[in-house]
Amino acid sequence: MAAAAEVSNRRVTLKRHVTGFPTEADMEVVVAPAVAVPPGSRSVMLKNLYLSCDPYMRSRMSRHLEPSYVPDFVPGEVMATFGVSKVVASGHPDYQEGDLVWGMTACEEYTLVANPESLFKINHPELPLSYYTGVLGMPGLTAYAGFFEVAKPKKGDYVFVSAASGAVGQIVGQLAKITGCYVVGSAGSDEKVNLLKTKFGFDDAFNYKKEQDLNAALKRCFPEGIDIYFENVGGAMLDAVLLNMRNHGRIAVCGLISQYNLEQPEGVRNLFCIVAKRIRMEGFMVPEYFGNYRKFEEEMAGYLKEGKITYVEDVAEGIESVPAALIGLFYGRNVGKQLVAVARE
Amino acid sequence: MAAAAEVSNRRVTLKRHVTGFPTEADMEVVVAPAVAVPPGSRSVMLKNLYLSCDPYMRSRMSRHLEPSYVPDFVPGEVMATFGVSKVVASGHPDYQEGDLVWGMTACEEYTLVANPESLFKINHPELPLSYYTGVLGMPGLTAYAGFFEVAKPKKGDYVFVSAASGAVGQIVGQLAKITGCYVVGSAGSDEKVNLLKTKFGFDDAFNYKKEQDLNAALKRCFPEGIDIYFENVGGAMLDAVLLNMRNHGRIAVCGLISQYNLEQPEGVRNLFCIVAKRIRMEGFMVPEYFGNYRKFEEEMAGYLKEGKITYVEDVAEGIESVPAALIGLFYGRNVGKQLVAVARE
Repeated sequence: MAAAAEVSNRRVTLKRHVTGFPTEADMEVVVAPAVAVPPGSRSVMLKNLYLSCDPYMRSRMSRHLEPSYVPDFVPGEVMATFGVSKVVASGHPDYQEGDLVWGMTACEEYTLVANPESLFKINHPELPLSYYTGVLGMPGLTAYAGFFEVAKPKKGDYVFVSAASGAVGQIVGQLAKITGCYVVGSAGSDEKVNLLKTKFGFDDAFNYKKEQDLNAALKRCFPEGIDIYFENVGGAMLDAVLLNMRNHGRIAVCGLISQYNLEQPEGVRNLFCIVAKRIRMEGFMVPEYFGNYRKFEEEMAGYLKEGKITYVEDVAEGIESVPAALIGLFYGRNVGKQLVAVARE
Repeated sequence: MAAAAEVSNRRVTLKRHVTGFPTEADMEVVVAPAVAVPPGSRSVMLKNLYLSCDPYMRSRMSRHLEPSYVPDFVPGEVMATFGVSKVVASGHPDYQEGDLVWGMTACEEYTLVANPESLFKINHPELPLSYYTGVLGMPGLTAYAGFFEVAKPKKGDYVFVSAASGAVGQIVGQLAKITGCYVVGSAGSDEKVNLLKTKFGFDDAFNYKKEQDLNAALKRCFPEGIDIYFENVGGAMLDAVLLNMRNHGRIAVCGLISQYNLEQPEGVRNLFCIVAKRIRMEGFMVPEYFGNYRKFEEEMAGYLKEGKITYVEDVAEGIESVPAALIGLFYGRNVGKQLVAVARE
């Protein structure tokens, strides 16, 4: 694919490190020449098809004084992200031109990946390829590992999911139903609440923006209390959930998106409930579960084909739409998994 | 022991439910006639020797609108507490006059216990009986279960204990040393810090009241970070600890004494560390581990006899001293395990 060296490569760079809410102006779409696979290297050149917009990327947009759990983006350089890509040139014997892969790539049209072993080959191209940014990719494995490995559900458990129509939440809710749990989700619009109830099979759902009192909302939805909280938001919701947990409840902490743009996080006051109810609250990060990916992929592909799990995506078109799509996550503008279609093949 | 029916019984009652810091005036020492074992009942009459003053009792002094994890004390009635007692009359075939027991009794000289099966017989009367309010009783099992069952230590772990010279903390630190951990404790006076370093074998210790910056103090003591935090205090200390936890660290939440007298608990802001470092934070309560008591008692009696564990008590004299001794806990006046000697035999 000598041609790749000659095509131009549009990419999204971070212009400056961010404090508070990021804006589109903090990023820039620039044109750079695409680089070829260096002769003799084991790199691969990817043509990016679908790019994922994920809340954790907010952390990378800040400058951290101490090393963070993911490295900070470097101003002026392309922003890395998970994506679905096609191999268009390869110096690696295990990767051939035309292979479809998902994994860590970057917000640009073409990406040279020096360690293609980090990429996962796509075993189910008969399913929508974009699903490998979501239900069959990082968010799907996040939901699967967080729910089964961290929250450890039992049939009949009362499960609450926040940000429940998002990339991860919608899968957690459906996995919980498959497991025989009672599932309630919260989301930030009536449209999303409607999706939860009608499309994803949640037993109940509420629009947290319309509730005067989150504690009362949870008491209404869970008169018996909550066994499992799949935590995506933090802040006031976590404080209300703590009051409504049952003894030996489990809180799988996936993310705290409500806090990511605050100069100082909100204080959580009801932590004594952790003692009084003997709660286990545990954080996790999906890369530690990548070893389970093949098992997960087969199981999830099966659910999708059988119609046991459905997935809603919010697809923005074109590399130029990355900044707005990413920012939209923090305002809850996306309905379902946010991704950007850069190319279809 | 028909005489018991005739002796008067001094007891400590709660005068009124408390908000904020309790005072001695919230309790009252009153005299009531001692009750005899009702004929035909399976009750036992206890003569209380040593009564335990424990931080969790603060919760019982409040009025809760919803059921709390322990029942509220009833104004005008005697306050229940753990204690070491001698059976002076018994309607139960398994309990004989003269038996020494520990368990839930009350802040008075004589207590009629309707369910003596809840009491533990004392198997090591050759050790100081008062130890059964502490290192061989509820606080000892709390330390043992919280450290081994909840925190799950490994040799070489970096362990931090707050309220480290208290009834539970001093044992946690010594169990950690026996396990081959590096152990640092915090306490609220130089005298206590000195005890930690010289008597209990902590590797390091600091007086939290003299530190301008708890985060800096922890960074100084744990340049490599903390694997296990045995949490007794909450609030600002927890926030600082979260910043200093290592990946896959464990926080065993035993209590949050710094918060018990606040009208509104302090907010804890650094919970994102739970995700970024994949921390497990888990609350526990010792009654769930009472089934392990006999194993614990033998192991701990062995450590005490071998001199591998030492224990410091702060003994107040006489039933009248219960209110001041209990209040003192919340000001950190006690040095070591706070108890009240009501009678020696």
